[in-house]
Amino acid sequence: MNVAVLGLGLIGGSVGLAARASGCRVIGFDPDPATRSSALEAGAIDEIASAPEQAVGDAEVVIVAAPVGALAQTVRLALRHAPADCVISDVGSTKRSLLRALEAEPGVERFVGGHPIAGSEQAGIEHARADLFEGALWCLMPPRAGSELVGRLYRLIGGFGATVMGIEPEPHDLLMARISHLPHVLANALVAQTTSFGFRERMLARSGPSFRDATRVAGANSAIWTDIYLSNADMLITVIDEAMGELQAVSRMLSDGDAEALTKWNEDVRDQRARLLP
Amino acid sequence: MNVAVLGLGLIGGSVGLAARASGCRVIGFDPDPATRSSALEAGAIDEIASAPEQAVGDAEVVIVAAPVGALAQTVRLALRHAPADCVISDVGSTKRSLLRALEAEPGVERFVGGHPIAGSEQAGIEHARADLFEGALWCLMPPRAGSELVGRLYRLIGGFGATVMGIEPEPHDLLMARISHLPHVLANALVAQTTSFGFRERMLARSGPSFRDATRVAGANSAIWTDIYLSNADMLITVIDEAMGELQAVSRMLSDGDAEALTKWNEDVRDQRARLLP
Repeated sequence: MNVAVLGLGLIGGSVGLAARASGCRVIGFDPDPATRSSALEAGAIDEIASAPEQAVGDAEVVIVAAPVGALAQTVRLALRHAPADCVISDVGSTKRSLLRALEAEPGVERFVGGHPIAGSEQAGIEHARADLFEGALWCLMPPRAGSELVGRLYRLIGGFGATVMGIEPEPHDLLMARISHLPHVLANALVAQTTSFGFRERMLARSGPSFRDATRVAGANSAIWTDIYLSNADMLITVIDEAMGELQAVSRMLSDGDAEALTKWNEDVRDQRARLLP
Repeated sequence: MNVAVLGLGLIGGSVGLAARASGCRVIGFDPDPATRSSALEAGAIDEIASAPEQAVGDAEVVIVAAPVGALAQTVRLALRHAPADCVISDVGSTKRSLLRALEAEPGVERFVGGHPIAGSEQAGIEHARADLFEGALWCLMPPRAGSELVGRLYRLIGGFGATVMGIEPEPHDLLMARISHLPHVLANALVAQTTSFGFRERMLARSGPSFRDATRVAGANSAIWTDIYLSNADMLITVIDEAMGELQAVSRMLSDGDAEALTKWNEDVRDQRARLLP
């Protein structure tokens, strides 16, 4: 299978490595020449394309792994320059804004929105791994492409050791706001309140694993995250509002000294987490 | 050194194990008979006391490791029944309310408030470890006890491999609100917003490490945490308010579509975390 990968960071590089490991021929492009060379050296691609148009020219599958803010233009370019029987997908963390932007694009039925639930707070081709998707879920938006094209995409993703999960863009983006974007915002808020720390406070914050863990994802790569936040702004605002409502309720229990309510709140959360993450 | 430990959960049990490992003789009491037996079997104590009064009768050091809500009465009992030249300390997560409660207590100058920054989300004697405090910081409130008594406490804690850090109750409690109590509240809030999850949402939430990590401390043992929250209610309300202010600011950047402000916010957090937790 001829696979083109546009964007060779952590995810694009790992797609290349995994695709080559499962026997595909991979041609790749990245706007940064140094990244292109690193990808070739790392074995993530068989061949460097000098332009995205060239990368997709003979592709049977195109995977667009650009930052969320550059997805629409890159997918558009792939739709225009890839062969008519090529299926195009992406790996962006949010889906509604991309699908809206592509709505009127000729040939858009060959595009299937995607989002592998995998990654790391370490970005860049140097952290790419052939096994990044092994055992992972890979969201695909309900496709409008023909079954042959979709089947090809499923085979590629299955070859990475990932499992496809079909999901609509709306519930996908709301879920991501809840389980990924809000946790990033809260981790940032935890760090933001430490500006006044003196020497002792810093020592104590450093001394245990708990604050470090709670803020592990804080200040994640802005080049990626500003786009993600903005492309899902409405959903993120909704879940931030819900979180503030929750905080207000806890604050009231505290000012009321209501041990019973605090205990019930905590026990409910405990049960809920045990069911959610057994 | 004769050490009495009152309360034989994770921390009390680990104090017993660590004290015995550094050559002390340890007598222990816990209100739960099964816990007392487990502590003896686990080697956390040399001897079971049948009552707290008996446990402290010959002690040179008493460590009170009861839940925060039971600290005052247990320390009071130790002050009344321990020998006149015995130093008494505790391991509670908050300090102001305890010190206020003991203010008028005769002999309170023999009490030195303590808080080892160590632990685990796994409570109970069965998770106690002799090395739990190795490399940890152990907060001690500025003592009013004589230098001989205080020196004895420092030697004991040093023998556990921990480092004593002197800190006033006020900054201690504010810091703990910031680096421990608020993170617990936020983890709970993240779990609370998942009530509506269906099968697919649960699968996706389970599939990556990120949501699991962000909610690791959610729904922590209520028997411990309701007391902690209430004993530090004012400080926790303050930092919850600050966090809500931060969330409101982010919400505004999102509704304004302000990429520049979001990026600056995120970069500031990134720099701040790098300085705080190198």
